[in-house]
Amino acid sequence: MATFVYDFAEGNKDQKDLLGGKGANLAEMTNIGLPVPPGFVISTDACREFMATGRHPDTLAAEVTAHLATLEATMGKRLGASDDPLLVAVRSGAKFSMPGMMETVLNVGLNDASVHGLADSAADPRFAWDSYRRLLQMFGGTVMGVEHDVFADALDELKAGKGVTADTDLDAGDLEGLVATYQKLIVEHAGREFPQDPREQLDLATTAVFESWNTDRARLYRRQERIPDDLGTAVTVIAMVFGNRGAGSGTGVAFTRDPSTGAQGIYGDYLENAQGEDVVAGIRNTLPLADLERIDKTSYDELLRIMELLENHYDDMCDIEFTIERGKLWMLQTRVGKRTPEAAFRIARHMLAEGIIDDDEALRRVTGAQLAQLMFPRFDAEAERDLLATGMGASPGAAVGKAVFDSATAVAWAERGEDVILVRKETNPDDLHGMVAARGILTSRGGKTSHAAVVARGMGRTCVCGAEALDVDTRAKKFTTREGRTVAEGDVISIDGTTGEVLAGAVPVSPSLVVRHFEGEHDEDPLVTAVADTMARADSVRRLRVRANADTPEDAARARRFGAEGIGLCRTEHMFLGDRRQLVEDLIVAESTEAQGTALAALLPLQRQDFTEILEAMDGYPVTIRLIDPPLHEFLPDLTELSVKVALAEAAGNADEHDRVLLEHVKRLHEQNPMLGLRGVRLGIAIPGLFEMQARAILEAAADRRAAGGDPQPEIMIPLVASVREFEIVRRRIEEVAAEIEAERGAVSHKVGTMIELPRAAVLADRIAKSAEFFSFGTNDLTQMTWGFSRDDVESSFFSTYLENGVFDVSPFESLDTLGVGSLVRIGFEKGRSTRPDLHVGVCGEHGGDPASIHFFDQVGLDYVSCSPYRVPVARLEAGRAALTYR
Amino acid sequence: MATFVYDFAEGNKDQKDLLGGKGANLAEMTNIGLPVPPGFVISTDACREFMATGRHPDTLAAEVTAHLATLEATMGKRLGASDDPLLVAVRSGAKFSMPGMMETVLNVGLNDASVHGLADSAADPRFAWDSYRRLLQMFGGTVMGVEHDVFADALDELKAGKGVTADTDLDAGDLEGLVATYQKLIVEHAGREFPQDPREQLDLATTAVFESWNTDRARLYRRQERIPDDLGTAVTVIAMVFGNRGAGSGTGVAFTRDPSTGAQGIYGDYLENAQGEDVVAGIRNTLPLADLERIDKTSYDELLRIMELLENHYDDMCDIEFTIERGKLWMLQTRVGKRTPEAAFRIARHMLAEGIIDDDEALRRVTGAQLAQLMFPRFDAEAERDLLATGMGASPGAAVGKAVFDSATAVAWAERGEDVILVRKETNPDDLHGMVAARGILTSRGGKTSHAAVVARGMGRTCVCGAEALDVDTRAKKFTTREGRTVAEGDVISIDGTTGEVLAGAVPVSPSLVVRHFEGEHDEDPLVTAVADTMARADSVRRLRVRANADTPEDAARARRFGAEGIGLCRTEHMFLGDRRQLVEDLIVAESTEAQGTALAALLPLQRQDFTEILEAMDGYPVTIRLIDPPLHEFLPDLTELSVKVALAEAAGNADEHDRVLLEHVKRLHEQNPMLGLRGVRLGIAIPGLFEMQARAILEAAADRRAAGGDPQPEIMIPLVASVREFEIVRRRIEEVAAEIEAERGAVSHKVGTMIELPRAAVLADRIAKSAEFFSFGTNDLTQMTWGFSRDDVESSFFSTYLENGVFDVSPFESLDTLGVGSLVRIGFEKGRSTRPDLHVGVCGEHGGDPASIHFFDQVGLDYVSCSPYRVPVARLEAGRAALTYR
Repeated sequence: MATFVYDFAEGNKDQKDLLGGKGANLAEMTNIGLPVPPGFVISTDACREFMATGRHPDTLAAEVTAHLATLEATMGKRLGASDDPLLVAVRSGAKFSMPGMMETVLNVGLNDASVHGLADSAADPRFAWDSYRRLLQMFGGTVMGVEHDVFADALDELKAGKGVTADTDLDAGDLEGLVATYQKLIVEHAGREFPQDPREQLDLATTAVFESWNTDRARLYRRQERIPDDLGTAVTVIAMVFGNRGAGSGTGVAFTRDPSTGAQGIYGDYLENAQGEDVVAGIRNTLPLADLERIDKTSYDELLRIMELLENHYDDMCDIEFTIERGKLWMLQTRVGKRTPEAAFRIARHMLAEGIIDDDEALRRVTGAQLAQLMFPRFDAEAERDLLATGMGASPGAAVGKAVFDSATAVAWAERGEDVILVRKETNPDDLHGMVAARGILTSRGGKTSHAAVVARGMGRTCVCGAEALDVDTRAKKFTTREGRTVAEGDVISIDGTTGEVLAGAVPVSPSLVVRHFEGEHDEDPLVTAVADTMARADSVRRLRVRANADTPEDAARARRFGAEGIGLCRTEHMFLGDRRQLVEDLIVAESTEAQGTALAALLPLQRQDFTEILEAMDGYPVTIRLIDPPLHEFLPDLTELSVKVALAEAAGNADEHDRVLLEHVKRLHEQNPMLGLRGVRLGIAIPGLFEMQARAILEAAADRRAAGGDPQPEIMIPLVASVREFEIVRRRIEEVAAEIEAERGAVSHKVGTMIELPRAAVLADRIAKSAEFFSFGTNDLTQMTWGFSRDDVESSFFSTYLENGVFDVSPFESLDTLGVGSLVRIGFEKGRSTRPDLHVGVCGEHGGDPASIHFFDQVGLDYVSCSPYRVPVARLEAGRAALTYR
Repeated sequence: MATFVYDFAEGNKDQKDLLGGKGANLAEMTNIGLPVPPGFVISTDACREFMATGRHPDTLAAEVTAHLATLEATMGKRLGASDDPLLVAVRSGAKFSMPGMMETVLNVGLNDASVHGLADSAADPRFAWDSYRRLLQMFGGTVMGVEHDVFADALDELKAGKGVTADTDLDAGDLEGLVATYQKLIVEHAGREFPQDPREQLDLATTAVFESWNTDRARLYRRQERIPDDLGTAVTVIAMVFGNRGAGSGTGVAFTRDPSTGAQGIYGDYLENAQGEDVVAGIRNTLPLADLERIDKTSYDELLRIMELLENHYDDMCDIEFTIERGKLWMLQTRVGKRTPEAAFRIARHMLAEGIIDDDEALRRVTGAQLAQLMFPRFDAEAERDLLATGMGASPGAAVGKAVFDSATAVAWAERGEDVILVRKETNPDDLHGMVAARGILTSRGGKTSHAAVVARGMGRTCVCGAEALDVDTRAKKFTTREGRTVAEGDVISIDGTTGEVLAGAVPVSPSLVVRHFEGEHDEDPLVTAVADTMARADSVRRLRVRANADTPEDAARARRFGAEGIGLCRTEHMFLGDRRQLVEDLIVAESTEAQGTALAALLPLQRQDFTEILEAMDGYPVTIRLIDPPLHEFLPDLTELSVKVALAEAAGNADEHDRVLLEHVKRLHEQNPMLGLRGVRLGIAIPGLFEMQARAILEAAADRRAAGGDPQPEIMIPLVASVREFEIVRRRIEEVAAEIEAERGAVSHKVGTMIELPRAAVLADRIAKSAEFFSFGTNDLTQMTWGFSRDDVESSFFSTYLENGVFDVSPFESLDTLGVGSLVRIGFEKGRSTRPDLHVGVCGEHGGDPASIHFFDQVGLDYVSCSPYRVPVARLEAGRAALTYR
């Protein structure tokens, strides 16, 4: 027969799946001899059965009875007995701590009879009635579904009638009256009486915990955090101890290290004569934990001993809840404490120095996502903050700008050079151009998978979403806070994409200390030291090399400072923009091969100069240069815009001949689906001379660099290859160019390889590897082709729907779809290596900088990842962490 | 040591790889005792070594010497001896007969001395000098590279000087003088003397044969016919026999059956006192073969005996060349004869009836491509044809229309209802709209892989390309034939896409008898009988079922008449066009869910009616209906056109509000890459109610049909699925609709399955098959995504370049890319079946009607193919043939 209930003494900290985090840690503390009130746990198995059947397992009641009997025997009291009653707290506790679940119900066991027994045994009627009204309030609200305001209003009314302001000004008689009022209110709002039977109270509270697993907020949170829906929650039933029994009593929370900065030394708050909920409610000001030494040195010393013991036992910073009842210290909860990214880095390094954890564990304790957060500019910690509301931090960063309420204004103002924050109730595909123009996006609705959040993350814009306290009125072009403050179009606001804060005015922004460090500046700062030490360790253990995607000498130099070991993707199309657009236009409109040749010849020296500078910036490291990929019409004006312009000019009788000719070419080159059109290697084959010009520019640049004493390592990469024949046609042309240059200036060392970015290239990689000297997975295009959607078109149109419907957990452009796209990466890698065992293989899609994807690439066995310069440190760190996992 | 030379007696007919077709068949005839002049074959191995090294294999000369000695011993003569010389013919002979290769050199062994020996031994000086001048002419032209006209001009001059017109009017003295002239001309044009050494003649002729393997024309032909470049050719050396030795001599060609109609009975031509080249040159009119009976009954009877023997020996219709020298019959060549599609069908059935071949072999002897040719309308066989020129038949059919010379005119004239033929030197992507508008396309340049040919085949337009005899002048809007005839814009021409003929005027077109037969008309015709018998056999052996792609009741009914066993793809988007476009527009511009609902409700009864009629037409067979696939903006006007219209109207101050609103929606729905956008299952998930309306229409139609006593078998197919979750979301919605209908009208039997048309669906097919009841491979989209190009965009822009460069042998949209796309089909099939062993799997891309692809699908193990109604008979035939291959 299945077991559903466990005494604390029967469990341990590794049983979070079964007992929930809270229950498992209470069991652990019990077993290592810490002072934990006795109790038991109703397991997640029971919750899962409840979710499946809608009722408690048949045998649960008998098990609870048995464990309750043990508890009563231990305590020498009976639950809710009318003389000296045993009271219990009923608490939810899932594997992962989760907002939206039911809160604690304290003082279960009190009723109209046992309240007198408690008053007698404690010799404190006020305490007894206060405990009873707290039970009614919590149980009425959480279990019976009465709005919490109903109780709060009654309490306020009582205090107002008595002319007092603090709860503590109410005496036992007042509270007895309040109990009667609460009981009436419960009947009125819930339609039934508060249950007097203590066991019924316990069972109903258990059901309420089970049901709270599926509140909307809990489900939303789980989806955001990718927590499976079928875990279920446990229920902890623990004997009550009371911090609210006078001067020798109190309650507190503590951390074994500072969870905000990571500084060594205990950290926490204490509140005399109070229960835990009072600390949270902020009714009175808490004291710093250190003050406890003065108040109750015995308990304080005991607490410090326990905290040290716990940190050593858990080998990590712990977060603790405790209560002192008349000089007796009780531990009510512990867990590994949450911490800021800064604290994570500092604590890990300190613990390593203290010998608590080893080098590997110190590396496991920090993540690339934390490092990335440390690299965003932040609002000055010292600056004053005028908080308007807090939403969800959906895309990190610190953005300051004038509030605008529609996309057209965002675009118009941005064009005249102003920073704007686009404020909407929620965004939709029509807002795309406004989102592009804005520094940040703020919405009052929607979560981390909303359109605004998905698109903002995709384009790297700071975003706060779901700031529900704001009433956004797009017609009136303003929003109003809960406090009635109004922000109108043009008013400056600041939004923090990490914390979700919405702030009035322009909050000063500081650059990241960590970025300054990577840039080579020498700040004396504990965080910088911790990050530097961590990166050194990651670099020493990682197998994956890290390169950068960089198209300019500046980006290449920055990437190198950030630790890049080469360039994995240097796109050459950006070099065709700006001043050179005219040359490209000449190439496109050229009517003859000669005219094309002239245009290409004009581009050659410019391209050569680009490559010389990039090779110089990355001297000694490989530089993978991708031949031009996008269709040529991308260098020409938009078809619709130009058509309208020409039509209007013709109607007005002042047609421009250049425009008219250009329009012909735009029409000629127009494609229904440019992503699936004449681009990449197809362009290179269709326009003889184009790739040859680029190859010449690369190899001449390398020859120049060598002549200047450098160590250039160019790798020429052919994009969009689907067949070995395409690759060979282009490779042959490149080798002809190389032979010409060799004849003049000696052989220039170089490699010729290909992108693997089409499904066909992946499944035929064994053939392609016969000819290609290296592979680089272009996971952006590979994702597009494998799923059959283009990022430009769909991220904005249906990704939020897909995230909400659970088709994705995360956009496959953010984090590699390891199941689908990943299986093609694995096939391509394995087939490539089967032909050429020393084939060098990397990845240059944006996934190269995504932590989960990096772990996958390491597991598959790739040689390197390449990502944007700012992601290089993240990739180095995650490559180090991945090496710990898959070795 | 490798052997390079084989006597005829050492080979047989199965050694075409080694001896070439001609050599292998001469060997075969020798060995079955037929009168073949003795000789030997220099093998393709020698040619391959020559191609690799540029010279003859080291041991070849010695081998030739040895075999020549045997030949001389057999004949009792020595090559080129000055008394009674042995003469030989040197002939090329590859595995596949191929235009562009070197022609025969006859009379090798004659020189200034042996010509006298020949004259003496034959007692015929004129014959000797005529033979010598023929050698000089052939050798000088073919081996020594002198233009053939040089010799023709000298001959003409001689005849003019003598005042005669026929070669036969020249006497021995004239010819002796001509020999001297030819020798001088050779020195003049080739820069060296005609070699007097007979062995040198033989060796140079051999080299010339080897070199002719790589002429431009031979290479082009091989690419078109997909013949590997590395086969090489053999060289046949055969003792000369002479048909030109007077009245008892002659030469002829014969077929054992009529190669044009397939009719039984011998068929051929005979020319008295002539050599083979005279027949080809058409100098004198040939006699029907039957006349030989009168001229030389002994030889005639002998020939008939041999022909019967050969047909029985080869089990097929044979094509024969023979010579009679002074009453002695010699066989010079035989091979399985080429034949028209009509002949192929009739001969196969006759031979089956005669017991020469069995049922399987009769089926192997015909192809789907031949059947397809028989299904095109043809120009009346009886009609007069006024031939202007002959090009390449690049895309079959018979097209009649007014010649136009630019695409704009083609479009304009077609719009006013005229049939036009677009005539260009060659086409390029700019001509696309003109090609769409035209009935046929005619070009003067380019082969079967040219832009015109590729695009025309892709869109099913009749096309003749490479009609080099035409001088096309697009500026003057006319073309001129080699004879100086002119066709101007507006003149009617007819083009035959099968034969490549370009004809003046409107040639009457007849419908295909075979199509009339499939349509159920009862023509008494031997061809119809042969096709019907063949189809019956194919149907009885094939494992693959054949369905049709049909969107209308008319197409469904036709497909059924053509033998379809259900519908594999009923597209529903076509049902949203025409009168219903307004309803779809209402749906798209609907501002509220209610308005959307109203628009959908209006579409429901119309859709239901569509499905009722289609289910009725296919009663008793499965009908797979694909829910709407294309993006909604396809139902709205083009963005650029509407933008121009609105801009012009606004400029003129008469803007139309409806247009303006519509433009907003067109902009909202505009996608950069609609193929990769909001379509298929994505649309179904994003627009609640749309798929549900379609599912309701399908299931209600099925319920109606059942109520009417029918046997409807609807299968609902979800397009563009990439993940099991997408499929399940839609399937759940469909099942909800089904449950509602079941509650009202009882359960409606149906299946819900998916297209496999994205690479991701193929690699995750095992997961998708858990939920999907059937798969249908959409190989069009799968090809697009696997290669990363869209048919619309690229077929016109670079496919001809790719065909010319050998990236494809054939467009992957015409014939499945079995290597790349096919490997995903195989993965998807195997994974799907691994989860659901009885999963029903078909294919509904256009490849379902392509012969090579059908063989692949049969091999993989699919259950059925589906193709356009007109391809159904082709698919049935090829499915039958495939069953013979893979069993």
